Amino acid sequence: MKKNSKEAIIQAAISLFTANGFDGTSIRDIANKAKVNVANISYYFQSKQGLLEYCFTTFFEEYLLKIEKGYASLDHGASFCLKQMSSVIIEFLCDNIQFTSFIFREMSIDSQTVREIMTTYYRKEKYFLQKVLEIGVESKEFRPQSISYIIVQLKGLWTMPFLNAPYLREVLYLFPNERYFAAKYTLEINKWIDEVLCVKKLA
Amino acid sequence: MKKNSKEAIIQAAISLFTANGFDGTSIRDIANKAKVNVANISYYFQSKQGLLEYCFTTFFEEYLLKIEKGYASLDHGASFCLKQMSSVIIEFLCDNIQFTSFIFREMSIDSQTVREIMTTYYRKEKYFLQKVLEIGVESKEFRPQSISYIIVQLKGLWTMPFLNAPYLREVLYLFPNERYFAAKYTLEINKWIDEVLCVKKLA
Repeated sequence: MKKNSKEAIIQAAISLFTANGFDGTSIRDIANKAKVNVANISYYFQSKQGLLEYCFTTFFEEYLLKIEKGYASLDHGASFCLKQMSSVIIEFLCDNIQFTSFIFREMSIDSQTVREIMTTYYRKEKYFLQKVLEIGVESKEFRPQSISYIIVQLKGLWTMPFLNAPYLREVLYLFPNERYFAAKYTLEINKWIDEVLCVKKLA
Repeated sequence: MKKNSKEAIIQAAISLFTANGFDGTSIRDIANKAKVNVANISYYFQSKQGLLEYCFTTFFEEYLLKIEKGYASLDHGASFCLKQMSSVIIEFLCDNIQFTSFIFREMSIDSQTVREIMTTYYRKEKYFLQKVLEIGVESKEFRPQSISYIIVQLKGLWTMPFLNAPYLREVLYLFPNERYFAAKYTLEINKWIDEVLCVKKLA
């Protein structure tokens, strides 16, 4: 029973935060949707802020597992590995598109919580990306590049459709929630890896 | 006098929205900061929502002027023109970095206002980008590509540092508010245009 109400609170919070934003959601809204009383939420999460942090942690724990899963293929070469990471991440983000959009939007706000989450998760992600890029340059698969600026581009590719979902829908008529999108977009990222990173092979 | 208080309200609103978000700012906060009374704000903008729309319009009117300024160089070729557009836009966005971050973050929320702004401004921007890309393909400067997906990438490059400013600072130690960044980042975008879009020249 207890576990069920905790789970119900989390699901209600994710769905309300996603639809109405963090500031637009009250603890009472969450309690009503989860069919629990307010004291229950305080018991598990202390506050709305606590719940938000729990959402971040849930999201990024899984996110990092995906990154590590992709990274595990480094034996097959740096380019293969980076493509694998992109494919696994884009699929994960598309599968959770509304939650992803909410989390990424919150991560764009400069707050104490965001800084802590970045230090914990994005620094690790950076470590993996940097390793792949460095090994790629060493093995002459990739051309030498400014690693930070390459990470800006790659992370831009990974986050763009979720931070700009209304733009994709309204202006470009692309629908990141459709299965087709993840597959096609991953191919575009692969092309970016081939063209921007890889050493040119003579035709 | 009247013009001055209107200007003061706008400046106060931009600065408070940027620092505390739209939901975290009250009309009273704005009135206090602008040293006007609340009725003044109602007179000029009706409501906080009206003020937000005014901010959007101010931002995107100037944004579109920059796009058009870059587009005007199309006679010099599609690749030159796209680089010119990127350079002008990145400089504009960096010069207004906090306002830019706020506007882009608000644009990621799916609302009636956002949809209207997109229809007015981003559709025009898309028209210009599409023209440059199509002409580039026609003149054999660019390889044939899926134009929508190329616009996703390019817009991703243009928006990434502003939607993810805390990430750039905290994780990558890049500072988009420094003059140096705009110049270096524009070179990265130029490289992307050369590698991903342009027909390969034999070395």
